[in-house]
Amino acid sequence: MPHPTAPLPDAVDLSHHLSLLSRSRKPSPLKDIIKYMYQKGMISFAGGLPHPSVFPFHNIAVSAFPADTVIDPAAPAPPAASVDYAIGRDMTPATAYSLAQGLQYMPSTGIQRLLDFQRALTERLWKPAYADWGVMGNSGSTAAWSMICQLLLERGDYILTESMIFSTSQAVFIPMGIKAVPIDSDGEGMRADALEEALANWDESKGRRPRLMYLVPVGQNPLGTTMQLERRKAIYDVAVKYDVIIVEDDPYTMLEFPEYKPGQPSTGPAENVDVDAFLARKSPSFLTIDYQGRVIRMDTFSKVLAPGSRLGWFTMNKMFCERMLRAAEVQTNGPSGFSQVIVGQLLEEWGLDGFLKWEVNMCEQYRVRRDWMLDAIYNEFDVVPAEETDVEGAIGQVVYPKGQAHTGPALMSFLPPVGGMFIWIKAYWRTHPKYAAFAEGRETPENDFEEVFWKTLIAHDVLLTPGWYHDPFQGDDVHAVEEAGAGHYRLSFSFEPKEVMDEGVRRMAKVFVDEWAPGTN
Amino acid sequence: MPHPTAPLPDAVDLSHHLSLLSRSRKPSPLKDIIKYMYQKGMISFAGGLPHPSVFPFHNIAVSAFPADTVIDPAAPAPPAASVDYAIGRDMTPATAYSLAQGLQYMPSTGIQRLLDFQRALTERLWKPAYADWGVMGNSGSTAAWSMICQLLLERGDYILTESMIFSTSQAVFIPMGIKAVPIDSDGEGMRADALEEALANWDESKGRRPRLMYLVPVGQNPLGTTMQLERRKAIYDVAVKYDVIIVEDDPYTMLEFPEYKPGQPSTGPAENVDVDAFLARKSPSFLTIDYQGRVIRMDTFSKVLAPGSRLGWFTMNKMFCERMLRAAEVQTNGPSGFSQVIVGQLLEEWGLDGFLKWEVNMCEQYRVRRDWMLDAIYNEFDVVPAEETDVEGAIGQVVYPKGQAHTGPALMSFLPPVGGMFIWIKAYWRTHPKYAAFAEGRETPENDFEEVFWKTLIAHDVLLTPGWYHDPFQGDDVHAVEEAGAGHYRLSFSFEPKEVMDEGVRRMAKVFVDEWAPGTN
Repeated sequence: MPHPTAPLPDAVDLSHHLSLLSRSRKPSPLKDIIKYMYQKGMISFAGGLPHPSVFPFHNIAVSAFPADTVIDPAAPAPPAASVDYAIGRDMTPATAYSLAQGLQYMPSTGIQRLLDFQRALTERLWKPAYADWGVMGNSGSTAAWSMICQLLLERGDYILTESMIFSTSQAVFIPMGIKAVPIDSDGEGMRADALEEALANWDESKGRRPRLMYLVPVGQNPLGTTMQLERRKAIYDVAVKYDVIIVEDDPYTMLEFPEYKPGQPSTGPAENVDVDAFLARKSPSFLTIDYQGRVIRMDTFSKVLAPGSRLGWFTMNKMFCERMLRAAEVQTNGPSGFSQVIVGQLLEEWGLDGFLKWEVNMCEQYRVRRDWMLDAIYNEFDVVPAEETDVEGAIGQVVYPKGQAHTGPALMSFLPPVGGMFIWIKAYWRTHPKYAAFAEGRETPENDFEEVFWKTLIAHDVLLTPGWYHDPFQGDDVHAVEEAGAGHYRLSFSFEPKEVMDEGVRRMAKVFVDEWAPGTN
Repeated sequence: MPHPTAPLPDAVDLSHHLSLLSRSRKPSPLKDIIKYMYQKGMISFAGGLPHPSVFPFHNIAVSAFPADTVIDPAAPAPPAASVDYAIGRDMTPATAYSLAQGLQYMPSTGIQRLLDFQRALTERLWKPAYADWGVMGNSGSTAAWSMICQLLLERGDYILTESMIFSTSQAVFIPMGIKAVPIDSDGEGMRADALEEALANWDESKGRRPRLMYLVPVGQNPLGTTMQLERRKAIYDVAVKYDVIIVEDDPYTMLEFPEYKPGQPSTGPAENVDVDAFLARKSPSFLTIDYQGRVIRMDTFSKVLAPGSRLGWFTMNKMFCERMLRAAEVQTNGPSGFSQVIVGQLLEEWGLDGFLKWEVNMCEQYRVRRDWMLDAIYNEFDVVPAEETDVEGAIGQVVYPKGQAHTGPALMSFLPPVGGMFIWIKAYWRTHPKYAAFAEGRETPENDFEEVFWKTLIAHDVLLTPGWYHDPFQGDDVHAVEEAGAGHYRLSFSFEPKEVMDEGVRRMAKVFVDEWAPGTN
């Protein structure tokens, strides 16, 4: 890494990573035309824009929450205070956006003013470690990831992933003929030593050594893990050594909570959030340590403003920006102008500091919800730190039937998440009284039992996401099993109210105890 | 074709057209989950939706033009009358859309209510000739065409195009390794006999016979041609015979004008539009004759509402709808919710009939602009119907220096367009006094002279789009020249006010006369 006081280096040349598709994109011939279009005195018959006088919308007035709004998750109701703004046809001193701009064709990067905000936010939060980085708007992270795969991958390639993966993310690359190389994860997500091992011992006969890594570093979906600075540095160093591009998909970046304290009832969200204190304890982006420009970061407004905005942005080296713009010109024509002017002006009203305050308040919202769900689990079961048990391979907390800590069967284990929206549980089939008989003669007894037990939970009116949804795809004939005699489920705490969470966990507890230790509750 | 009174047939099986990528897409595993999620009494921890109470927008109030607004293109100013509507957090009896719906994740097809409108509009306008068609929302036609190419094409394939093509449309497929097979066009666009010939004599050694055709049937960009019913039928029959999918990209569908009457000053837009009369004279969609389900139609709100909405829709057979949805789930996650609720509610306010009225008024707007530009050309030049001249291969009108009809050099020819936003002119280098000397020893003198003359026009402060921008790509080594001793330019009449158009055409006329017949004006 360069000396901290030295001027930042430019990105290294990574153009050999571009796919054939991306390398084949040509600069738009319109670039020449546009140069002449803005020449003084020019009359242009070259454009093909609809005339703005015929756009039927002439004013959009928005009412939104003030940036420092604290919503009560237990009794959510729109607060009385309101930030009101109107976007008119033409720019006025009151707004930074106009409908004339938002309703017309525009650069595929998005509106410059919004890019400026995204850039300032990135600079404030992450201070990228190289000089020539850029931001570029996109239509949300689903679209963004799909575009990255097209930018960098060829049929037959492999992607480095964490041990479990968001199902939609991998549904992008499976039909492209790409397979995952899942790397073992621990309580912080991907292990650097396991990554190094996979790359050092890559068998070239199966295909090119993986050149792309896909990570959700905060509140990983589904694992719920969050990666701290030292781990990120170790991962980054391996990426440099083996020339791997890191895709940092970070939708939950600001939903990074303090640790859960068992036995302390969850408080409501804090009235006075301290942004600086929040940022001081928060894990940094990979951008902060990326001195080579090999990180492509995906940010989105979906989790902290609204998924329906379909607005996100890339941060990446200028060369990737240019190639991605060529793709966007023919694949999206940029994000929705309605979304950009409405969200963009809200950010103007709030200001950068206001937006950060809002984000920290969002974090509090989901922190409270996490606490609700963990409280419910701690109430309905006996929960013991893994290191105090002899349960092999358990990380985080081990769960026993209520009143049977250490004495009863270990039902499951989980890591109390410090970010995101999910709790990932490992259920111990091997302690289930009927599992040994069930497993006999089966090829994939763990997966089969996961399905059966999932249906049992459903029969008791509680629905989880089964672990196999998140199994990284390694080919149609490969059934990954992470651990013998265990299965997984994902629990989301983002949506249900507290009472419903309590009741849902109660139902889960009843099913577990009825199955594992009938007659003991 | 089936008997007119018989029940409509279902689409024929066209699944052999799907690309490897499209065939490889799997149904989302979430489908099962969703089924259980809505089961009565179920508590779900399976979703991962942000909680709607934290979306910061609680009201969006829109002011728009009434559907019957007639805008004066000469003095555009927002009309006094206004349709006002507010979209609140929750659904109210006053609106068909809510923010709760528009701000959250949603099906990638778009919101059902908007799909219902698109379906009703399609049924009203085109009455597709088969039964199992569907509509599906997309993020505008650029995105839509890109998705179609991925749905149906493989590297090395060929696409049937008209003789000239919209540059952005082909910038999608060139980097995919696809080449165009340009089919000769006449005053109505693609010629059916030329199409049949190209397919009948296809040389399989260069690759698969083309299976996909890309057409802009109304106001073709750049040719300005519009295809009438008989031609469409003839093209469709060839497509059936050779098993070709027709992609009907129809952004200008409702901008289909009556013929231009030279010598009659253009009137302003009509106050009382007659939708039925308009539809009776308008060319139908290919859907109207598509009894096999082999047409993929692309509609967009870009030209008649606002490009920034990034909202369009496909109409196609159910099998294509299902495969396209699988792609949208991982490539877009659906169009912007802001766009959908704002545009969707406007359509509710206007109603289907109101929207049609608005569209016919839009047509009047561009009809007036077309007339402005043609009036200017007729004023600055002598314009003679091609059939009254001996200019070889000319269609439409032949243009001479003012006062030199038949006697002076034929400068150019063009077809007065009956749709869209463009006039396509063919300039006759062969009558230019210096062209013969210029051409000597050059490999592509037509293209070179097009470039030189384009720069001459620019030096006189008038900017056109040069013809080569629209040359269908047939491989890097192929320089298509449609006609010896001629070049092309595209003029757009969509944007500039009348006085600017007049001045621009005056500048053009001066350059033409100075070059071709110096000293005569």
